[in-house]
Amino acid sequence: MTKPITEDAITKLYCSKYPDEIAIADLGCSSGPNTFFLVSELLKVVDSVRQKIGQKSPEYQVFLNDLPGNDFNTIFRSLSDFQNKLRKQLGPGNGPCFFTGVPGSFYGRLFRKNSLHFVHSSYSLHWLSQVPQGLESNKRNIYMASTSPPDVLKAYYVQFQKNFSLFLKCRSEELVDGGRMVLTLIGRRSDDPSSKECCYFWELLAIALGDMLVEGLIEEEKLNSFNIPMYTPSPAEVKYEVVKEGSFNIDRLEVTEVNWNAYQDEPDLSDAFKDGGYNVAKCIRAVAEPLLASHFGEGILDEVFRRYREIISDRVSKEKNEFVNVTVSLIKA
Amino acid sequence: MTKPITEDAITKLYCSKYPDEIAIADLGCSSGPNTFFLVSELLKVVDSVRQKIGQKSPEYQVFLNDLPGNDFNTIFRSLSDFQNKLRKQLGPGNGPCFFTGVPGSFYGRLFRKNSLHFVHSSYSLHWLSQVPQGLESNKRNIYMASTSPPDVLKAYYVQFQKNFSLFLKCRSEELVDGGRMVLTLIGRRSDDPSSKECCYFWELLAIALGDMLVEGLIEEEKLNSFNIPMYTPSPAEVKYEVVKEGSFNIDRLEVTEVNWNAYQDEPDLSDAFKDGGYNVAKCIRAVAEPLLASHFGEGILDEVFRRYREIISDRVSKEKNEFVNVTVSLIKA
Repeated sequence: MTKPITEDAITKLYCSKYPDEIAIADLGCSSGPNTFFLVSELLKVVDSVRQKIGQKSPEYQVFLNDLPGNDFNTIFRSLSDFQNKLRKQLGPGNGPCFFTGVPGSFYGRLFRKNSLHFVHSSYSLHWLSQVPQGLESNKRNIYMASTSPPDVLKAYYVQFQKNFSLFLKCRSEELVDGGRMVLTLIGRRSDDPSSKECCYFWELLAIALGDMLVEGLIEEEKLNSFNIPMYTPSPAEVKYEVVKEGSFNIDRLEVTEVNWNAYQDEPDLSDAFKDGGYNVAKCIRAVAEPLLASHFGEGILDEVFRRYREIISDRVSKEKNEFVNVTVSLIKA
Repeated sequence: MTKPITEDAITKLYCSKYPDEIAIADLGCSSGPNTFFLVSELLKVVDSVRQKIGQKSPEYQVFLNDLPGNDFNTIFRSLSDFQNKLRKQLGPGNGPCFFTGVPGSFYGRLFRKNSLHFVHSSYSLHWLSQVPQGLESNKRNIYMASTSPPDVLKAYYVQFQKNFSLFLKCRSEELVDGGRMVLTLIGRRSDDPSSKECCYFWELLAIALGDMLVEGLIEEEKLNSFNIPMYTPSPAEVKYEVVKEGSFNIDRLEVTEVNWNAYQDEPDLSDAFKDGGYNVAKCIRAVAEPLLASHFGEGILDEVFRRYREIISDRVSKEKNEFVNVTVSLIKA
């Protein structure tokens, strides 16, 4: 979905100056089969352009960033295979491409001043640096919900504004003038921050937790004090922060959707994969498990996600649900 | 021992230009209590100078490099504690200091062109990229030894020359003009590459292995084909490669010694620590264990190092032995 925007941005960056070096940072790179995907795509785009116009390949410096708890060892140990594969795909004359791992929060400076040309972050920036202050009245909700009082919605928004503007400020110091940044967040189309399109998958998890509270499997106080440190902004909110912070011009700002059950129309997959409940519950478990485990203890995890999957399967069979992606392509002014 | 040379080099680097950013690479950083030691020392030196003359602190970019099998996760997870400690030691106005991990062999390019100001490598560059070709006649020796035929000594030297000149070439591309590099290797004073001062600790390990061969605990063919991929150069050999490669001027070239039994005169240590055999065998085990394990299998390790420790204890009680360090401080011409 966001591939054309990213390709467009790196092409424009390359064609504006034909630089002989490009420093790329992937913020929230994680460690898994997709970690190298972005880099691979970016290098293919640049290489295709530079071959057409007969330019020598730039040198690449790739900074892979995530929190210090990320498994960088696994990334580093698979790097050599990736580099060999890339060399074959791109052919002679490409690169070299130097990889480094950068541990730390992107809500702070991570790189030297004016040292980056291209920053990318996908599915990470909707995570806040902390649970917003002042959510006491959010009770049995675990995120913004249709039943959340206005002060809860405001507390979430304030935390997003703080985090997102700090992010922009840090990156503006690190990017060279004319440098580019493509950010994709889970967000919403609606102006209403408690809109179903962005809150529903947490509301269903809150239902599973609520049922367990009724059955005495978790404590009321525990549930009342649990909230997800995330914010799913609208394109207008993203735009507002960018304009207010002032370091970047917006090149593109787009909204796309991904079906909760992205595999449902694939005829060749096993039933487990075609079960939308399985897929969504698995995705959400991957991100929510550490949060739930540290708050409620590990003991409840299997039970809560068993219930969550059931609830989601039921909903998916009755209605179409989508994640909304907000993607913004920025140029450092 | 090498601290004054390193301090001198970073001071000269800083005072030549008072740069507002310094990119430092530590090649062969390992992962342990000493990983951050160098960075900490370098930053203290620069900070002390810049405070004296009332300069604003530069920003630091620190690249920690080692092979991809190094435990970078442990480094990254202890980074936050280290940074807090450093901030306290240096006081306000210092830094910021950005850390990245760089997996890969330093016998190849690791960084972008002209992107480094200071390169440091301690106790790593005596390791060769591979066991030299043509050591068939080295039989029961496992390194250069007084009984090694001339073609063995030559094969080792040729491999060192290849590796060290490639190292210099790669670093010269990565360092800015006027950039500096301080390298410490285990080496020798003598012109004879099979001199006792650099080969003795491997000769004693060869004795332990030879005894096990006689007792049928290891196979003859296995021992004959085992050789340590290391070269312990003389200062003259280091100088020759630097001059031949041509990218660097030598600022200082010094030789120092460390007693095998560095703790023997400390009155307060336990007997285990005061036992020179224990210390040296432990050091050598740390570096030789993976080599021995992959060649002979893990089964022999405890036995070979038990014997090695006995042999060393015996020698240490009778004679004084030292490791020779060769340190060279270079400036990119």
